[in-house]
Parts: sequence; C-alpha cells; structure tokens
Amino acid sequence: MYPVKYLSDFTSNVFMKMGCSEPDALRIAEVFMAAELRGLPSHGILRIKDYYQLWKAGRINVKPDVRVVHETPSTAVVDGDGCVGMVAAVQSMELAISKAKTAGTGWVSTRNSNHYGIAGYYAMMALKHDMIGISMTNANPQVAPTFSVSPMLGTNPIAVAIPAGQQPPFVADFATTPIARGKLVVAEKKGEKVPFGFVQDKNGIPSDDPAVLKAGGSMLTLGGDYIHGSHKGFCLSAIVDIFSAVFSGANFGPFVPPSVAYLPVLDKKVGEGTGHFFGAMRIDAFQDASSFKSSMDEWITTFRHSKPAPGQEKVLIPGDPEREKEARIRKEGIAVLPAVEKEMKEIGEELGVEFVSNE
Amino acid sequence: MYPVKYLSDFTSNVFMKMGCSEPDALRIAEVFMAAELRGLPSHGILRIKDYYQLWKAGRINVKPDVRVVHETPSTAVVDGDGCVGMVAAVQSMELAISKAKTAGTGWVSTRNSNHYGIAGYYAMMALKHDMIGISMTNANPQVAPTFSVSPMLGTNPIAVAIPAGQQPPFVADFATTPIARGKLVVAEKKGEKVPFGFVQDKNGIPSDDPAVLKAGGSMLTLGGDYIHGSHKGFCLSAIVDIFSAVFSGANFGPFVPPSVAYLPVLDKKVGEGTGHFFGAMRIDAFQDASSFKSSMDEWITTFRHSKPAPGQEKVLIPGDPEREKEARIRKEGIAVLPAVEKEMKEIGEELGVEFVSNE
Repeated sequence: MYPVKYLSDFTSNVFMKMGCSEPDALRIAEVFMAAELRGLPSHGILRIKDYYQLWKAGRINVKPDVRVVHETPSTAVVDGDGCVGMVAAVQSMELAISKAKTAGTGWVSTRNSNHYGIAGYYAMMALKHDMIGISMTNANPQVAPTFSVSPMLGTNPIAVAIPAGQQPPFVADFATTPIARGKLVVAEKKGEKVPFGFVQDKNGIPSDDPAVLKAGGSMLTLGGDYIHGSHKGFCLSAIVDIFSAVFSGANFGPFVPPSVAYLPVLDKKVGEGTGHFFGAMRIDAFQDASSFKSSMDEWITTFRHSKPAPGQEKVLIPGDPEREKEARIRKEGIAVLPAVEKEMKEIGEELGVEFVSNE
Repeated sequence: MYPVKYLSDFTSNVFMKMGCSEPDALRIAEVFMAAELRGLPSHGILRIKDYYQLWKAGRINVKPDVRVVHETPSTAVVDGDGCVGMVAAVQSMELAISKAKTAGTGWVSTRNSNHYGIAGYYAMMALKHDMIGISMTNANPQVAPTFSVSPMLGTNPIAVAIPAGQQPPFVADFATTPIARGKLVVAEKKGEKVPFGFVQDKNGIPSDDPAVLKAGGSMLTLGGDYIHGSHKGFCLSAIVDIFSAVFSGANFGPFVPPSVAYLPVLDKKVGEGTGHFFGAMRIDAFQDASSFKSSMDEWITTFRHSKPAPGQEKVLIPGDPEREKEARIRKEGIAVLPAVEKEMKEIGEELGVEFVSNE
C-alpha cells in the first residue's frame, strides 16, 4: 500500500520531467489521485504510461497555451492546445464556475484536449462554491449505436455533483454503457465470460465473450439491447459527444483521437483533439442556498431510507460507494498492481524519478 | 381517422369550457396534438379525461397567475399556480429562450405545475431560435431506485433538441426507464408477459408480469438490473427529479401529486405541485451558427451511415422515427381508439362541446 502523498509526488514529478509546469503537474497528479481514492484505479496511475508514451510520440503538448476562443456571459469555448486533458479541464471548469458567479450558470465546451481522467473530479470542483457541477467528455470509439455494428462512440461519461447541507453531496459519475471498458479487459484477461448486454460481435450478434472486442466487435450502450432501451443509452452518449465536440470544434464520434500511442493517429480529422463539456450552476440562482441544502438533505434522507429489497443491506445514494472507498483508502493507502509498479519503476528510471516499491 | 384540426379544436374548446383562457387552451391543444402527431397517443387526447376529472375535483387552477419568483441573468424559478402543466411549461421554456438571447443560455425550474404532456415539445421550441432545447419533468412515483422495493420516482423523461442545417434536427426524448408505462398497461390489459428487466414484484423479485404493478410492484430504471447498470438509470432519474423539484421548490420523488383524480391527494407535501426543468442554449454561444449547423449535418450523416447490423435496415438518429410518424399522420389523420372516442363524446356532452365520431 502506498500513501497518497507518495504516489501524488511521484506523478507530479514524472509530469514535470516531461516538461509540464509545476502547477500543471500538481493538477494532473491531483486528478489521478482522485481516481485512486474513489476506487477507480482504471483512471489512476495506470494511465501515466499512456500519457508517457503519447509524450514520447510527440502527441502531447506539455507547454500548452490554453485559451478562451469564444464567449458570452454564461458560455465559453476553450482550446486546450493539445495539452494533458486535466490541464484544460481544470481551467475550463474554473471558467464555468467564474461565469456562474455573475450569470447564475456557466457552460464551457473544450476542444483540442486529451483524456481527462475521471469526470466526477471536475463536477465536484463546483461543490465548495455552493454550485452544482456537471462534466462530460467524449472518448475513443468502441461503442456501437443501436442497430449498428460500427464502434462510433466512446464510453462517454456524465458526472453531476449537487451540494447538500448535513448530508454528503449527491455525486453521480457514470459511463453511458452498462459497464466500464476496464472491467471487460479484466474479464478477458481471466478468460471469463460476461453477461449478455455488454458486447456484440462484429456481425452485431449479442455475445458473452469480451474477446470479441479485439475481433471487430463493439460495446453496447446503456440498456444493452433495443428492447431494454439501448436507444436511450445511444441518445445519452450522442448528447455527450455533441456537447463535448460539436459545441467546441473537437473531433466527434469515430474521429476522436486515440488516447494510447500504440494506436495510430487517424487519417481523418473533423476538429481538434478530444472534447469535454462542463457546467456550473449556483444553487442560489434557483433557491436561497440554505433552503436548497436542507431540501437536498431531505431528498437524500428520503431515498436513503426507502425500503431495501430482501438481501440488500441498504439503498445507496449516488456518491455513497465512492465516498466509502475514499475513507478506507485514505486510511489504508493505495494498492498498486505489480504490473503497474513495474511500469512506474521503468518510467521513473527513464525520466530520473525514483519509484520505490514498498511491497 | 381524424384531421389534426378537428381534434385540436375539440381539445381547445374543452379546456375553454373548463375556464381556461383562449391562448392557454390553444397552447394545451397544441401540445396534445404534438404527442398524437409524433406517434405518442399515450400523451395525447387520451389524457383529456384525467385533466377533466382533476378539474371537477378542484385540483387544477384554470385561471392561474403563472409568475417568475426568482431569477439571475441565466436562470429563473417559475411558479405555475396549480395550472394545467402545458401552460406553465410553455411560459417557462419561452423564458429560458429569452434569457439565452442575452446571457447565451437560459435555465428555468418550474414548481406548482401538473402533468405537462410530451417533454420533446418544449425542447423543440428552441430550434427555430437556433438554440438547443432541453426539457425534463418529474412525475407520479412508480419506479424503484436500485436495491429498493419502494416506488419513489416517476418515469422522469429527458428531451434534448439540437438544430442542424440541411439535416432534420436531432431530437432525443426518452423516459429514464427501459419502457414507457403506457406499454406496460397495454400488455397487462392483453394478459401478456413482458421481458424481464422492466418490472419487479413487491418483494423486489424480477418479474415478467406487468400485473405486479397493481400489487405493490414497481418499474425499474434504465439498465433494468444492477449488473446492467440500473444504478445509472437511477442517477439519471434522480437528476431529473432534483433539477425539476429541488431547484424549484416542487414536490420531489414519492411526494409528486397524482396526475389522475382517482388517486387521492397525498398527506405529505415537501413543496408545491409537480416540477419541470427547461434549458435553452444559443448555438452561437459556442460556435458561429452556420459552422455549428454544418458540423451537426456531418455528425448526423456520419452516424446515419454507420454500418447497420444484419437484419436492420438502417441506423436511426434520435428524432427520425417520430418525424416519419408525423409525416404519415399529418397525411392520414389521427387514429382514436373507440374507448377514447366514447370518453371524448361524454366529456363533450357534459361541457357542451360536440364530438362527432367519424368512424
């Protein structure tokens, strides 16, 4: 187990060695640590390697000029200048928050960025300002629209964070697919089958074998099949893609650039880089802040105390599982898989940053 | 088959006889007709009877003072004064559009309203202003959160309409459940089973019998079960509920008042009436309008031409099926079930509005 501070310092040092400024490197490390703490290691330091390889391939700009290219009182478009995604994302969310202070709400669409880590981090930035935060991003195409066999969409997550008073905040953070890509990779490595409704083969036949993804298959949208509403999952994923990329002028759908260096840069571009979308809404743009918070407390308490199904301990409010994990991980430390430790050691050696395995 | 104009005139005359002003009655009729034209008769004139009975029970205010009770440059809260839902909804969406004109975006949360018909109608109001439109509403509780057996949420729909250039607009309009309540009612009346993933019995056991809903069962959120991501559907439904009701001060979750007179008014209130949420975003708040539209054309064309699965004719863009239905129904007329014709005749006789069956 690693203390958060140890992995955070390692991460920021690695990004500084690649050429990032100290403030940028600290931001990047903070988002990686948020993923580890919330129990989402698939978006944690595991991804440092992807960024390191993109940097070596000259596909990341570590000295970006992140700038606002268009704005109104409540909106803006930000150009990330090919940066590490977290850098443009934090600045974009800060801009949304600052617009909300004067206009009531702020909405920022961001182009020319890269993989930004966990969506929930940015949504939660709004909470301390007594605002609702919203964050979404498009991503590498691996999900097929309903009735299609073509992987056209990313797992396109949506995060919404809503402040409460005595209760912890409501934090929803979910991919618009039934299951995360990372869990399919794990099942495939173990040679395990998965439930139907997650993937289809290259001919569009429903499959329980995650290995079909490497053989021309695709993931399915939330709902799983048309009968169970996969077209609604397609709507959601499409909305994330359009808000992130068509609003900003980023690449949409099948044209989103790969977030890993082992996949080639695409021939066709329809915009600049990857796209994100951020929103901030002041709670007192709708209600007196204290009455908003006490209503949210009552909402949360009402739903938390709804009757559990037999065999279920309790009904969970969005954000509960991640908060419980964070409390435990802060105490116990972050677990790192041996394969990831090895990669961190190798990257550290190449860049001159020590990584001491503590297992 | 009935011409649209005939049913529209009948509807507005019925609401005027109940005491609505002519402009309000015309708005109400227009929303009912939009549901019929888009092939959603479950939200069409079938519902006139519910409103008529609520009115007879003194539970609808036909002379409402719909007013803004709170605002910022980009937001407002509207109080519907217990009105027919369409009246507050149209005014609220118009306000969102007007705020977007100056602030770039406009966001309105509405309380003290009632059932507002189809969500998509209000989202589509934004299109002719070169804006994206968003609409959502909470509704009578009949859906259980993941891990619960209590019906706590409505089918809480989300609609998003996005303008394009040469292509027809993107219009998503969907309940946050796998299937509409209306389809379960039809299956139950026919004594048919439904696929698993739609409903559970009062003990939380998955069921294929829609009759469980009348025996303490509940509908499930999009995803159907936890393994297939029903907690994501719960997140969506919860967000709709909070944006519609906690933002505005309406009743949330299990406290939403019944939209039918045969269910009693609830003992406990946590706010005023039913809640809705509306958004309007100027496309040129993000991009030059003509380049936005040509990007949307390219998005739509790209997805429409993704490879169909074998046995599927084509890949559909959100809004395609409803637009095709509207073109057909405008030509052929609106079909009305004999049972609904009978109800219209009875209501018409009581109010002194002629309904001539043309079958």
